[in-house]
Amino acid sequence: MLSQTSEYALRAMVWLAYTGDELLPTPTLAKHTKVPLNYLAKVLQLLSKADLVVGRRGVGGGYKLARNPSKITMLDVIDAISPVTPIDSCPLGIKSHGTHLCPLHRRVDSAARIVIQEFGAVTLADVLNEPDSSHPLCDQGRLISLGLTKEGQRISPREK
Amino acid sequence: MLSQTSEYALRAMVWLAYTGDELLPTPTLAKHTKVPLNYLAKVLQLLSKADLVVGRRGVGGGYKLARNPSKITMLDVIDAISPVTPIDSCPLGIKSHGTHLCPLHRRVDSAARIVIQEFGAVTLADVLNEPDSSHPLCDQGRLISLGLTKEGQRISPREK
Repeated sequence: MLSQTSEYALRAMVWLAYTGDELLPTPTLAKHTKVPLNYLAKVLQLLSKADLVVGRRGVGGGYKLARNPSKITMLDVIDAISPVTPIDSCPLGIKSHGTHLCPLHRRVDSAARIVIQEFGAVTLADVLNEPDSSHPLCDQGRLISLGLTKEGQRISPREK
Repeated sequence: MLSQTSEYALRAMVWLAYTGDELLPTPTLAKHTKVPLNYLAKVLQLLSKADLVVGRRGVGGGYKLARNPSKITMLDVIDAISPVTPIDSCPLGIKSHGTHLCPLHRRVDSAARIVIQEFGAVTLADVLNEPDSSHPLCDQGRLISLGLTKEGQRISPREK
């Protein structure tokens, strides 16, 4: 349902949530998220424009999250790429419809509101801290080798 | 939430459901759906490729639905433009994840399934026949002037 770009944005944000306060070079992020480097660079520009990441160019540069993962929802990330918006008034501008949507647009609106509710209620921290044997974007062994887990149990965002 | 292209496709399909078995010229369809003509032509090509409309070029040509509106769901139309697919296995190809999705992709999958359920259960006929004072794509007066309503009550797809 999400566009490829939104999927890549979510991967990038989750990985930056793993890696914490250090600026992560874009090529390293591309490797871990399996996103083509040039594509990722464009995604990061959009995330930066939406104030979700901060970056610095040049030697020692890279990106990190702009705020704590507990303050960023999945919807924030998706909205940075392609906003999910309810339909508040007739998209065709039919005056007699006004805010009383027709059955077609009422259903599109309803689906948008469900998606907003689903993704708006989940933060990156929720995704990372959910007790599960399957961790976002990598297997357990890889996480440990990167020093990103605690006793192989839970992943602490912003750790390391 | 839907792309502009999907929105336009839904409009086109709804209008073709109104107008029935006659081939409707693309410029006429563009006028009623308020979709730019060139854009609409591309949308119709995608709908044709998905076997949702049939068309004929040249004088007297145009498009009509490929089957009865009760046999076409909103999801069929959306899928013709940009398929909504559940996530059956890890998009990064991580072997240890397999079909046991991580918390990130489980949530994306869950939202996709909700959208599939919402749009898959509604046919174009449902949208057109829903008793409502607000009819898809046009106001009551315009429908009557086009001979597309029965006593201003319900719209019968394929009527006229």
